[in-house]
Amino acid sequence: MATTEKLKPAARVSGQRQDVWTIINEAAAASPKQPIVNMGQGFFGYNPPEFILDAAREALGRVECNQYSPTRGRPRLKKAIADAYSPFWGREINPETEVTITTGANEGMLSAFMAFVEEGDEVIVFEPFFDQYISNIEIPGGKIVYVPMSPPKDGATVTSSAANWTIDFDALRRAISPRTKMIVLNTPHNPVGKIYSREELEIIGDLCVKNQILILSDEVYDRLHYVPFTRIATLSPEIEKLTLTVGSAGKNFYATGWRVGWLVGPPDLIKYVAAAHTRICYSSVSPLQEACAVAFEQADAHDFWSTSIRDMKSKMDRFNSVWAELDMPFSEPEGGYFVLVNMSKVKLPADYPFPPHVASRPRDFKLAWFLIQEVGVAAIPPTEFYTEKNALLAEDYIRFAVCKEDEVLELAKERLRGLKKYIE
Amino acid sequence: MATTEKLKPAARVSGQRQDVWTIINEAAAASPKQPIVNMGQGFFGYNPPEFILDAAREALGRVECNQYSPTRGRPRLKKAIADAYSPFWGREINPETEVTITTGANEGMLSAFMAFVEEGDEVIVFEPFFDQYISNIEIPGGKIVYVPMSPPKDGATVTSSAANWTIDFDALRRAISPRTKMIVLNTPHNPVGKIYSREELEIIGDLCVKNQILILSDEVYDRLHYVPFTRIATLSPEIEKLTLTVGSAGKNFYATGWRVGWLVGPPDLIKYVAAAHTRICYSSVSPLQEACAVAFEQADAHDFWSTSIRDMKSKMDRFNSVWAELDMPFSEPEGGYFVLVNMSKVKLPADYPFPPHVASRPRDFKLAWFLIQEVGVAAIPPTEFYTEKNALLAEDYIRFAVCKEDEVLELAKERLRGLKKYIE
Repeated sequence: MATTEKLKPAARVSGQRQDVWTIINEAAAASPKQPIVNMGQGFFGYNPPEFILDAAREALGRVECNQYSPTRGRPRLKKAIADAYSPFWGREINPETEVTITTGANEGMLSAFMAFVEEGDEVIVFEPFFDQYISNIEIPGGKIVYVPMSPPKDGATVTSSAANWTIDFDALRRAISPRTKMIVLNTPHNPVGKIYSREELEIIGDLCVKNQILILSDEVYDRLHYVPFTRIATLSPEIEKLTLTVGSAGKNFYATGWRVGWLVGPPDLIKYVAAAHTRICYSSVSPLQEACAVAFEQADAHDFWSTSIRDMKSKMDRFNSVWAELDMPFSEPEGGYFVLVNMSKVKLPADYPFPPHVASRPRDFKLAWFLIQEVGVAAIPPTEFYTEKNALLAEDYIRFAVCKEDEVLELAKERLRGLKKYIE
Repeated sequence: MATTEKLKPAARVSGQRQDVWTIINEAAAASPKQPIVNMGQGFFGYNPPEFILDAAREALGRVECNQYSPTRGRPRLKKAIADAYSPFWGREINPETEVTITTGANEGMLSAFMAFVEEGDEVIVFEPFFDQYISNIEIPGGKIVYVPMSPPKDGATVTSSAANWTIDFDALRRAISPRTKMIVLNTPHNPVGKIYSREELEIIGDLCVKNQILILSDEVYDRLHYVPFTRIATLSPEIEKLTLTVGSAGKNFYATGWRVGWLVGPPDLIKYVAAAHTRICYSSVSPLQEACAVAFEQADAHDFWSTSIRDMKSKMDRFNSVWAELDMPFSEPEGGYFVLVNMSKVKLPADYPFPPHVASRPRDFKLAWFLIQEVGVAAIPPTEFYTEKNALLAEDYIRFAVCKEDEVLELAKERLRGLKKYIE
């Protein structure tokens, strides 16, 4: 009918396949093993520290903290971020020109793509990728060029560092074209847990300088590193000139629902990111921006950053101890709060009744479904973060988020021990 | 140089002229009359009521209120909004399918455009318009077709109702083409203060039904009406099927910095708005969504909605009493917190040193500059919200925001009395 045709939605929102979050959440809701232990999505199972919550409560009492913030962010927060990042940069970062606040890192990255990508421009993305990158690049008409990361060759049998996930640098060189506008990095990496080494970043940075490619470095897990962490912006002035670094209050301060993010970079890049952000969200949430400013200001006094690393590493080790019991290898994370476990040893019953939307996906979707139904633990199949072409690389892996309370981790382990009977 | 060319920003963020907010803020900062009485931007000069702030403080203590909310919004808030809107709709609104939460009304409207507008689709917008509409329509490639509202013919000499700003319905009919996908309404209207009459809405609604045009009704000032207020979605089932109604916690609850908005509409429209929102912001600020749910739930018990109208109408009357003293006509607002004052009687000195970026704009920009420099009151020139072609319609008007504390309004009046010596 003509009228229906006329009211149809835009191609960008119609006819997409079911996303992994919906599949996993629906599976969890329908599982006989209630309540499910949810180690799927990367939200925290506990609160930000009290000094940060108190700062938010205090901000709510102040008139100016409940009204519009400047579109580029509250001056106090920009200053606090500039002060926090300056030691890494080895110089004073200018809060007025080199920092801009966004509605979470997600909208911050969209703002960066909106600021620089035009129809047909190419953006290089490593697989596995954070799924929002894809739609965020496509919104301004960008074309994504994928370069896969590969798991260690012995990943099915041996536990080793997430550092052993590798980029094929020849493939990266081949991916560069005259239309390459940006490259997206993510370090510490979700879901791999890899921290790109200085050597890897130097190769990437030099390629970007040579080909004049902007670098969007998603460093939202920057405060959770268990090995030394290098930021690509700090490698050389030439690389810095091309680099936008993305940060997240949600990840730094255990508050994924706060929607406060930021970008740090050269003034002539930041100003366009801010202009795009103004058109997308106008400004970002005021009282929580103020609370984040206090969080940065007082973090050292509360020994927050080192506590944060120590607590998360302890959760990692606590949870991952179960894999030795099961003789199942995993990629030991160098940073972040996700761990990829190789489940090639789990034998899925040949006649298991997977629903069609799961049966049609790679093995990791079946593993995830099986875990939810038979063990009662929800986790994420990482091939969702690969293109179809390269999905088989990760089809034996499952991603667990360990940013949960210790009791939850212990309960998950207890349930995961139930996998023993399915291990060959 | 080739390298610079390669890194250039997207057209959508580059080379725009200075916006009105920057001009007015910079003028205010540079004025000799410090501190400036700021009646420019529409933020509140006071806090949300304590029961709402308490709800926000309480939410900050709960783990799930600090983490990601569902992309479509927190169930409690969707339920509270459905309950609050159901009486206006005369039926139960389904919170799961007919409501979606966005990061302020601004990102909500962008989500609606992203959901339905494709390259070359036309969107009808009335002038004067809220300036964010324009970039929000252009982001998905929409073409804006403007239909001007005209001030009352005797606006320069007589105060009368904002209802007397009129749409040329013949111009509206001519604006409709086979590519017309949406029309944007704003009622109560910013900056005019007009509430579209039932008769006007019926003409618009019937045209949209006949031509199958989606209606995006920006009703963010819905709780501030001083005459009866009709919502276009409630006129008929045929119109409702085409209508997305936009609401704002920032405007409803005196908290423009909270960035919580929503859309109400038919399930087969809302689901695409939600899909677009997921790609833009992923989800919206959790603890303040929870606080807004409580605000809706407890509004009646606190007699909040009627207090809100009574307080704002009292501010309107308090402030606008100065215009009789100055013998200056204004458009008596039917709703919202803005008032347009006709300043054709103010004689600007012929040799006044306006800076070039003001001198090149219509007379209202000069009036606004002059008010800031000579009187110390900041207000907004409304021709910013017209296309160049139609800007002369509003060049004698200035917009004041009255959502300020009574002392601020009194101080503004005292200063505005200083205009007497410039009135012919």
